[in-house]
Amino acid sequence: MGGKVLPHRVADAVDGSRLWSLLMDLARIGALKNGGVARQALTDLDTEAKNFVIAWAEARGLLTFQDEAANLFVRLEGADREAEPLLIGSHLDTQPTGGKYDGAYGVAAGLEVIEAIRHTNAIPIRSIEIVAWTNEEGSRFLPGATGSSAFAGTRSLDEMERATTVDGQTVADELARSIAGTPAPLRRMADVRPFAYLEAHIEQGPVLEASGIPVGIVEGIQGIRRLSITYRGRTAHAGTTPHDLRADALAAAARCISMTDNLRNEHDELLRLTFGRIEVEPNSPNTVPSIARLTIDLRHPSEAVLDAISKDLQALAEETRGPCSLDFVTVSAVPPVSFDERVRCSLEAAACVLGIDHRDITSGAGHDALHLARVCASGMLFIPCRDGVSHHEDEEITQADATAGARVLAFTAMQLAGTENGLKKAS
Amino acid sequence: MGGKVLPHRVADAVDGSRLWSLLMDLARIGALKNGGVARQALTDLDTEAKNFVIAWAEARGLLTFQDEAANLFVRLEGADREAEPLLIGSHLDTQPTGGKYDGAYGVAAGLEVIEAIRHTNAIPIRSIEIVAWTNEEGSRFLPGATGSSAFAGTRSLDEMERATTVDGQTVADELARSIAGTPAPLRRMADVRPFAYLEAHIEQGPVLEASGIPVGIVEGIQGIRRLSITYRGRTAHAGTTPHDLRADALAAAARCISMTDNLRNEHDELLRLTFGRIEVEPNSPNTVPSIARLTIDLRHPSEAVLDAISKDLQALAEETRGPCSLDFVTVSAVPPVSFDERVRCSLEAAACVLGIDHRDITSGAGHDALHLARVCASGMLFIPCRDGVSHHEDEEITQADATAGARVLAFTAMQLAGTENGLKKAS
Repeated sequence: MGGKVLPHRVADAVDGSRLWSLLMDLARIGALKNGGVARQALTDLDTEAKNFVIAWAEARGLLTFQDEAANLFVRLEGADREAEPLLIGSHLDTQPTGGKYDGAYGVAAGLEVIEAIRHTNAIPIRSIEIVAWTNEEGSRFLPGATGSSAFAGTRSLDEMERATTVDGQTVADELARSIAGTPAPLRRMADVRPFAYLEAHIEQGPVLEASGIPVGIVEGIQGIRRLSITYRGRTAHAGTTPHDLRADALAAAARCISMTDNLRNEHDELLRLTFGRIEVEPNSPNTVPSIARLTIDLRHPSEAVLDAISKDLQALAEETRGPCSLDFVTVSAVPPVSFDERVRCSLEAAACVLGIDHRDITSGAGHDALHLARVCASGMLFIPCRDGVSHHEDEEITQADATAGARVLAFTAMQLAGTENGLKKAS
Repeated sequence: MGGKVLPHRVADAVDGSRLWSLLMDLARIGALKNGGVARQALTDLDTEAKNFVIAWAEARGLLTFQDEAANLFVRLEGADREAEPLLIGSHLDTQPTGGKYDGAYGVAAGLEVIEAIRHTNAIPIRSIEIVAWTNEEGSRFLPGATGSSAFAGTRSLDEMERATTVDGQTVADELARSIAGTPAPLRRMADVRPFAYLEAHIEQGPVLEASGIPVGIVEGIQGIRRLSITYRGRTAHAGTTPHDLRADALAAAARCISMTDNLRNEHDELLRLTFGRIEVEPNSPNTVPSIARLTIDLRHPSEAVLDAISKDLQALAEETRGPCSLDFVTVSAVPPVSFDERVRCSLEAAACVLGIDHRDITSGAGHDALHLARVCASGMLFIPCRDGVSHHEDEEITQADATAGARVLAFTAMQLAGTENGLKKAS
C-alpha cells in the first residue's frame, strides 16, 4: 500500500459490504412489503431516517447540524476548520412507492467515504460534510429539491413554506415538526459557503446497464419545466344535460393530453413530456366535471427547445379548451446545467486511476446537484440501476456497482478536500 | 266550490306558501352558506331530516313507519285500511354540495297533498303513504336508490349493506345507526304491497324552463349503464424514460376519452356519455402513471342502443390501450323504463282539469320511481328548475311551479286512491 497516494488508499478502504449494510439499514425505515420504501419528505419516517444518520454520526464522534430547510449535515472536521467545506450529498426522502436507492445511495456512499477516511487515519485539509437534502422528490409537496434549492438560493424558502402537502399540512408546519424532532443543532444556511459539491446517484435510466459500465460521469442535467393547465367548466347532471350544453373540463384535458403526441413527434428523442398528475372536481361518476388540473413535466437539454414547447403547449391548451376557461401556469423552470469541468475531470481521473470502467452521461432526472451547481463547483456520478427502473419498489442495484461508485467518490473527495499526505496528522 | 269533484277540491286546497315554508324548513337541515344543502344519505343530518318529518306527522296524528332500508313512511289512513296503499315519495338525501329541491320537493309535495286532504276533510278509500327513500343520490355510497331498489326487490339489501361509504363506514352499520336514531316503528318492507306510486321531482334539465311549462308528465326514464375502464401500465421516471419505452396509463385514458367524441356523433342526441371520475396512480407530477381508472355514465332510452355503445366502448378501450393492459367492467345496468299508461293518463287528466300547462318529457336522470315501476303502476311529474341546474348549490325553483306540481299530484292522488265523494266520512 506504501506506494499509493492517499486518495487511492482511502478509495481502497471503501468497504462494499459495510456500505451495503448501511443501505439496508436505511431501507428498513419506511419499508414496504414488496421491497420498496415509502418515506416521503418531512413525514415521521423521513425524520426517523435523519435520526438514524445522526446516531451513526454520534457513534463516530462526528458533528451534525441541520438548517432552516431541515437539511441534515454530518461533518468530518478537516485540518483547516476555517476552509470552505466540501459537501457530498443526496436525499433520504422517497416517492410514495419508491425504492431503496434513489437518494439513499448518495447519502450512504458519502457516509462510507467518511468511514474509509477514518479507517486510513487520513485528515483532509478541508472539512467534508455529508448532506441529506429535504424533499428532493416533490411527491408530498411541490416544488421538489426544496432543501437544496433553498440552500443554493435558487428559490425562496419563505415562499415554499406556504405550500400545502398532499395530506393537507402546511410545509411550514411540517418543517418545524421535522426540525423539532431531529436532535441536531441548527446552523443557518447563510453561514455555510461550500467549496464544492459531489453527488452520487443511481442513473434512473437504462444507459449504463445497457453498456455494462459501472460509473457514469455526469456532464449535465436537462432543464425541467413544471407546467400546470387548469380547465374550468361547469358541473352538470350526467343524465339530463345535452352534450352541446356542457362545459366538460375532463373532456378538454383529455383532448390536450392526446394531442401532445403530435407535438412530441415534431421534436428530437431527448424531449420528455409527461402528464403525471390529474385532479378532477367533483370527480363524481354522474356529474360532468367542472375542473380538471393537469401537471406537465417537461425536460430537454436545450433551454430554447423548452421555451418553444412551452409556447406550443399553451397554444394547444387554448385550442382544446372548448367552452371551458383556462389557466396556464409555469410552476417552475429549472434551466439545463453543465457541471463544472474541474469536478468532471477529477471524477474521470479517479475512475481512471482506480481502473473502474466509466463513460460520460447526461442526466434525464433533476437532482439536488442542479441547484448546488449555482453556488459552487459541482459534479455527479451515476451507477446503473436494473432495467433503468426508479420511482418504483422494484428499484435494484448491485453491490459491486455501489462499491465502484463509492470508491470513485472517495478518491475525488480526497483530491478536492486536499491532503498533505498525512503529514498534518503527525504534527 | 260546491260543483267541483273532490279531487279538484283537494287540489284547490294545496297551499303554495305552506308548501314553500315546509321546503325551507327542510333546507335548513344541512344548509350550506351559499344556499345549498349537504345532507348525504344516513348521516346525522339525513336522520335529522327524517325526524323532522316524523314530528310533522305526529303533530297531525298520522302514523309513521320505517323499514329495514331506513325508508320512512307517513301514513294517512284511508277508509279501507286493508286496501293496498298509494305511495307518494322521493328522497331527503342530497349530493355533497347539493340543492334544496332535488328529492326534498317530492317529499314536501306529498306531505302538502296530505295537508290539503285534511283541510277538505276528505277520506280517500285507499291509505296514502308519503315515503322518503334512502340514498337515492349514491354519492356517499353506491349504488344509488338503495332504499327504493331494496323495497322493489330489484337489488338485494344484504348485498348493498356490505358496501362502504366514502368516509369508511359500512352501509350495514350506518343503516343500523339511522334506524336506531329514528323514532318510527319498524315495518318489514315485505309486508307492504303498494297499489301505485307517484313521484314529483325537479326536472334537473333545461326542457320545461325553455318551453315555459310548469309541469312535465314523465313518459319514462333512460336506461343507465355504469362502466369502468382500468388501464394498467408501468410507473417510470418522467425525466429518464424514453417515450417509446413507456406504458403510460393516463395517456391511454386520455385517448379513450377524446375518441368518444366520434362515437357520440354517430348516435342520436338522446345519448348521454359522461366520464365523471378518473383515478390515477401514483398521480405524482414526475412519474409516468401506472394506473388510470375511468368511470363512464352511459344513458339512452333504448336498451339496444346501450348494448351497441357498450360494445363500441369496449372496442375503443382495446384500441387505445397501447402497451397497457385493460379491464373493462359493466358495474351496473339499469334498463330503460316506460311509466304505466294509466298513471300517465291520470296525471295528464289532472293537469287538464286544473288548467295547468303541461307536456310529455323523458327523464334523463334515474329516480326511485324507476325501481317502483317494477312492482306497481308508477308515474312521475317534473317541475322546472332554473337553468336546468341540479346537483349544485345554485339549484332553484319558483313557488308557482312548486304549487302547480303539488296540485296535479293532489288531484291524481285522490283519483288513484279513490273517493266516495265524502260519503264515507259522514257514515
